[in-house]
Amino acid sequence: MAPSGIITLITDFGLADPYVSIMKGVIIGLNPGAKIIDITHELAPGDIFCAAMVLRDSFAYFPEGTVHVVVVDPGVGTDRRPLAFLTDQYFFVGPDNGVLWPIISENRGTAIHLDNASFFRHPISNTFHGRDIFAPVAAHLSAGVDVFNMGKVIEDPITLTLPRPIQEGKLLKGQVIRIDRFGNLITNIDEKTLKDFLGSSNCTVTVGPIRVYGISSTYGDAPVHKEVALMGSSGFLEISVNQGRATDRLDIQGDIIGIPVVIEKRRPRH
Amino acid sequence: MAPSGIITLITDFGLADPYVSIMKGVIIGLNPGAKIIDITHELAPGDIFCAAMVLRDSFAYFPEGTVHVVVVDPGVGTDRRPLAFLTDQYFFVGPDNGVLWPIISENRGTAIHLDNASFFRHPISNTFHGRDIFAPVAAHLSAGVDVFNMGKVIEDPITLTLPRPIQEGKLLKGQVIRIDRFGNLITNIDEKTLKDFLGSSNCTVTVGPIRVYGISSTYGDAPVHKEVALMGSSGFLEISVNQGRATDRLDIQGDIIGIPVVIEKRRPRH
Amino acid sequence: MAPSGIITLITDFGLADPYVSIMKGVIIGLNPGAKIIDITHELAPGDIFCAAMVLRDSFAYFPEGTVHVVVVDPGVGTDRRPLAFLTDQYFFVGPDNGVLWPIISENRGTAIHLDNASFFRHPISNTFHGRDIFAPVAAHLSAGVDVFNMGKVIEDPITLTLPRPIQEGKLLKGQVIRIDRFGNLITNIDEKTLKDFLGSSNCTVTVGPIRVYGISSTYGDAPVHKEVALMGSSGFLEISVNQGRATDRLDIQGDIIGIPVVIEKRRPRH
Repeated sequence: MAPSGIITLITDFGLADPYVSIMKGVIIGLNPGAKIIDITHELAPGDIFCAAMVLRDSFAYFPEGTVHVVVVDPGVGTDRRPLAFLTDQYFFVGPDNGVLWPIISENRGTAIHLDNASFFRHPISNTFHGRDIFAPVAAHLSAGVDVFNMGKVIEDPITLTLPRPIQEGKLLKGQVIRIDRFGNLITNIDEKTLKDFLGSSNCTVTVGPIRVYGISSTYGDAPVHKEVALMGSSGFLEISVNQGRATDRLDIQGDIIGIPVVIEKRRPRH
Repeated sequence: MAPSGIITLITDFGLADPYVSIMKGVIIGLNPGAKIIDITHELAPGDIFCAAMVLRDSFAYFPEGTVHVVVVDPGVGTDRRPLAFLTDQYFFVGPDNGVLWPIISENRGTAIHLDNASFFRHPISNTFHGRDIFAPVAAHLSAGVDVFNMGKVIEDPITLTLPRPIQEGKLLKGQVIRIDRFGNLITNIDEKTLKDFLGSSNCTVTVGPIRVYGISSTYGDAPVHKEVALMGSSGFLEISVNQGRATDRLDIQGDIIGIPVVIEKRRPRH
Repeated sequence: MAPSGIITLITDFGLADPYVSIMKGVIIGLNPGAKIIDITHELAPGDIFCAAMVLRDSFAYFPEGTVHVVVVDPGVGTDRRPLAFLTDQYFFVGPDNGVLWPIISENRGTAIHLDNASFFRHPISNTFHGRDIFAPVAAHLSAGVDVFNMGKVIEDPITLTLPRPIQEGKLLKGQVIRIDRFGNLITNIDEKTLKDFLGSSNCTVTVGPIRVYGISSTYGDAPVHKEVALMGSSGFLEISVNQGRATDRLDIQGDIIGIPVVIEKRRPRH
């Protein structure tokens, strides 16, 4: 696979501080032809799970040869390893803290412990490996440096617990794994799992006080301000409100991530 | 008109979710030479009017041949049409929900219903036409594909009600149509309308409890923390506070957009 | 020095309004090859000091020949001068209001009053010199126009009071000059000053109710949720909380910027 010259960035740095731009300055200094695309920098500080979900939902829309960089790195400066993961189509770079696990576990590829400091920026700080390790490595990868020169293959990257939907008789039990700006509740129930479970049956979808009958194909299938369940653009079941916010219909204190979503099989569709 | 390779984006997607970056990935995959510039992604969800105002205020500062894309699309997945509008200088792409109406009504050009699915991304989701329709169409336009191959000319694009200032005797009545980060109240009273109305007269400007005498030429014409009315950079009358926020001087509950702004003619200037 | 074609932007415009994109449109119209990198647009409106600190912390990570543009400009439209500053490695452009002072006072170079209106955009508004003066000047500089054709050398740029750490016997007294997204308290105590003061001694660091013993080398040196003092990535002492927010440990009403940070010398290290 030849590099495309495209580098994407996912961090928890926000856009108010100069940290993201400093990474870009380092990249462009090493590879003036690199094209940098921000995926997001607005993750909650240290939210490895959300970073992993965002990466999984977005990486495949970029051209072959893209370098995807994730810097959500609460263990920066400790002995956690810097990691690259190489698939047939993409390069992934980030700390070995589980953030790359969904990619590693769901795609064929090779994990490499980045331990060749000649591809880092020096001196290496203890607090900003995005600037000193991940940005320079990504720049070199995007310029065609062989990742196998950058470190050793490893077989034991850190894992991340990924909640999977569970079938219990007439029930399929999943959970909310992401909330978006529109207040949509994005679940861990993928299209294939739902179809296999439902067959020709209809269903109800329950999450907190929300109860929806059937799976719709578009937001507009529900009346304005009514709840609707549908397959979202990332291939997972979403609970939404047509021209409203599903999050506002939950009477939940605290974190919505992780709350149960239950699909109950109903009589066959007519 | 040859395409410049520049594509601008206006959406209500925010920057926390990966949706904007997914559009960019699709664009760059189809036209690796495209240069993408974000206008804004921070519009309130579904705010077609504000999207239309932002587009009108910004499009003309880009080079000829730029493709301007707007995705504020509460009707995504329904039968609302995807639209392109071609002028002598620019391409515009977005849903046919009124968001392009200020451009269409104020510029000569041709509206095209984008119905040639060979320029879309497949499968086409029901919830993310930014990714599946508008991004690929924009990429193809920026690469030189003829827009007339992408659909049929139409004469009935959806309109948007645009409030115009009204003259009533010694009064010119307009309204606030946009608020910016500095708390400036941007009105629908354009420079020509105001000049034609005032002639050689002076005026007072009233909005809520704010009352300002005369039109100034710069924020610094008012004492620090005092209200001032001036022609803003987009060519419309603004009410501002020098080194402060005009929005903080209004004692209004709820939406400031749409509140009346009244110009009263006074004795001739000396 | 040849221009790199890279232009960075620091403003207080935010990303909700179209102002930043309008500057980019103007730049790309004048120099289609320019590469624009956002440093930040989220500064508090009119916060010249913070803009100056962000510029100082980030400019050196960009390639030689980069044009750094700062538009935090509460005096726009008054007689404050537009300024360029040329060093061996970089171009800096911004209003003459002190925002460039840390760069000017800490780097050899030449200050130029930009008074050649042939490099501006016309008509020049009184409210948006980012669009009409600074963006076009930056575009021309990035395309190789000689800055000495753009104005006259001046010797009296506006200064900015930069708080310096002060030694008083066994105490080194500094202050907090920036807070980042992670709640880190970034001080004005640089590494050299601290080393010269401490020699082989250990120290305590006090800021508000926070009291930390010794300077650590990484966040992870403290137990989770405990305070730690370390040299931050920008070369200044930071007070942080491992996987937490130092700002939350202060019981201070109002502005944290400027609160005292006191280093007290302790018995020699073992």
